Amino acid sequence: MSVKVWRNAKLAAMAEADGGGGVIERGAVVARDGCIVFAGPEPELPAGPGSAETVDCGGRLMTPGLIDCHTHLVHAGSRANEFEMRLAGASYEEVARAGGGIVSSVRALRAADEDELVRQSLPRLDALLAEGVTTIEIKSGYGLDTENELKSLRAARRLAQERRVSVRTTFLGAHALPPEMEGDKDSYIDKVVGEMLPAVAQAGLADAVDGFCEGIAFAPEQIARVFDAAAALGLPVKLHADQLSNLHGAALAARYGALSADHLEYTDEAGARAMAEAGTVAVLLPGAFYFIREERRPPIELFQRHGVRMAVATDCNPGTSPLTSLLLTMNMAATLFRLTVDECIAGVTREAARALGLLGETGTLEAGKWADLAIWDVESPAELVYRIGFNPLHQRVWRGK
Amino acid sequence: MSVKVWRNAKLAAMAEADGGGGVIERGAVVARDGCIVFAGPEPELPAGPGSAETVDCGGRLMTPGLIDCHTHLVHAGSRANEFEMRLAGASYEEVARAGGGIVSSVRALRAADEDELVRQSLPRLDALLAEGVTTIEIKSGYGLDTENELKSLRAARRLAQERRVSVRTTFLGAHALPPEMEGDKDSYIDKVVGEMLPAVAQAGLADAVDGFCEGIAFAPEQIARVFDAAAALGLPVKLHADQLSNLHGAALAARYGALSADHLEYTDEAGARAMAEAGTVAVLLPGAFYFIREERRPPIELFQRHGVRMAVATDCNPGTSPLTSLLLTMNMAATLFRLTVDECIAGVTREAARALGLLGETGTLEAGKWADLAIWDVESPAELVYRIGFNPLHQRVWRGK
Ligand SMILES: [Zn+2]
Ligand SMILES: [Zn+2]
Repeated sequence: MSVKVWRNAKLAAMAEADGGGGVIERGAVVARDGCIVFAGPEPELPAGPGSAETVDCGGRLMTPGLIDCHTHLVHAGSRANEFEMRLAGASYEEVARAGGGIVSSVRALRAADEDELVRQSLPRLDALLAEGVTTIEIKSGYGLDTENELKSLRAARRLAQERRVSVRTTFLGAHALPPEMEGDKDSYIDKVVGEMLPAVAQAGLADAVDGFCEGIAFAPEQIARVFDAAAALGLPVKLHADQLSNLHGAALAARYGALSADHLEYTDEAGARAMAEAGTVAVLLPGAFYFIREERRPPIELFQRHGVRMAVATDCNPGTSPLTSLLLTMNMAATLFRLTVDECIAGVTREAARALGLLGETGTLEAGKWADLAIWDVESPAELVYRIGFNPLHQRVWRGK
Repeated sequence: MSVKVWRNAKLAAMAEADGGGGVIERGAVVARDGCIVFAGPEPELPAGPGSAETVDCGGRLMTPGLIDCHTHLVHAGSRANEFEMRLAGASYEEVARAGGGIVSSVRALRAADEDELVRQSLPRLDALLAEGVTTIEIKSGYGLDTENELKSLRAARRLAQERRVSVRTTFLGAHALPPEMEGDKDSYIDKVVGEMLPAVAQAGLADAVDGFCEGIAFAPEQIARVFDAAAALGLPVKLHADQLSNLHGAALAARYGALSADHLEYTDEAGARAMAEAGTVAVLLPGAFYFIREERRPPIELFQRHGVRMAVATDCNPGTSPLTSLLLTMNMAATLFRLTVDECIAGVTREAARALGLLGETGTLEAGKWADLAIWDVESPAELVYRIGFNPLHQRVWRGK
């Protein structure tokens, strides 16, 4: 049995009970075998075994370890070339003719073997870990056939063996139409529900199932078929919803009791109300909003008014958000979406855990959860959100180490 | 005499002669005593002394060391609290009543001694150096009296002793009106030209003189007085111009043969033409544009049409751009201002050197310049601009080491 004590920390425990935003000026955390057994004011520290290892945090801020709850981190190649062409004035058609767009990511992923996917994904993961990330969600969705979707999910799971981090995998077969099935979305959805999803479930490789509901991707009816199949297999769902238009994806996700609906730029009040009632978390992705220069921001005020929980994530992906900084993502959520400091920090801790169905395990500093935490060289939580392109991480701790 | 050879590098030398954007697929650089004596294709490598130290770059990309040509890096305290208040809905008045705004930075800077300023500034400098910066400009402008402006400039110069980096200092007395002279801008300008600037010049602490020409700062006539005084002392000038309104600051700067005019959101065609004729560099500051959510972007097309050189910088400062990543700044220049990849990279190398009057010394990989260079784990220059919140630096070299 190993006991570890962190003392003399400014504690932003982010627990629901405190209202979330409170800071304990002189706090302490005790972990036993990687699990928190105490988090609170240092004077209330229970007497422990004399053998406990003690860390003096020197008055630094301690938060829960950060959680990036929406990424496409496992992918192959980059789309820098496409980015360069666009800036030089190329049209979407010219980029497509040059082999650009999501098809290029599908081609690159299919060409890479599992080892290569792990090798290319590790530097992105390391960038996130360097900023205190202790849990990350990773979606498939560039394989678009059974073999390559399985390969992507295996690569994602392998990352958790290569580094000290929790990885949650999401099957996103309904991400885009594979080029070989051009023009036949219904047949591809047949394959997703009839072949791919059962194979993924059988292999135990997915913690959730996701889809992309949009004119350029799949219709609500097609997504509903995927969600029905997920429900039959006992897998929770999430949805890329209402990013570029209002197809009522948020309401659809809520109807299926989704863990989260993500993007949500065009979500309307009925959608927000449905999410609140279903407990579906709104995952905001300001990196994509920034990178593709969207003009309509998600209806934050509706989410606030109806009590929809908001998480914030990088959406790390090669086409629309080549972003690997969760600190910068918080700044973008504040600067571009006007989330408050508390909302930003809750969005990458407690609410991100909720969006992954992991609130019982991580996301706050409370007894009973994993000792996943981050210690920062800053005076206040606001500094984590305010600074741009600066990493004040002092130490990252995953499961007590 | 020490000779060092870097071989097997993709060379983005950024020299004017190549048109700037070319990459030599298999290039080499030779430095003698920290100075480049050869940069070009490896087969053309001159025979050197057998004793030369050789570095195999493994096919990685090599660029000139990056140059951040507009910063207020030396400052005290943070304005995170003010940021948090604004996000929570506080008005400018409420923030001001709570002691916020530039006055709070002036108060904090005056309260800090030189050692403390160095101590607080080093982590910001280190963040820039970690991304391959080899030259940085640092302005005064939070002291606003002789003693505190001198202290700021001394602290800036001290940073060059603490780290292997070139520092250029700029006296920005005409940044804001000090609180003790409220309502009397002309008298403060009297003091700037009659007392502060001569003291700074006497101490040899400034490489250039800057001002802030704006309704909330100083009028063109007041700036002209500062520029006349600078000219009399033989110091080159720069100007914060046309950021929030068109006071014809760009044309004013050009009239004085300024090294650069900076911000420029409201610059008109006459201003662009005057800058082109004077050889005044346009320094674009997308971090401030992003952070204070400006809606009007600088007239890039006018600058391109008239052949105005464009540099890109962080504007690192606590109030409007708490940004310490020049890589991210390039991404913002591309994403928000639509600069091309070549323009972004030239903007933080060759054109940034030009904006500091240092083009003869650094900013490109050419014989006769310092061996200031950066080696990157990327396939192409575009990747440096495309990725967000990721640092692919392999090695930074300042003056050959
Ligand atoms: Zn996504
Ligand atoms: Zn400035």
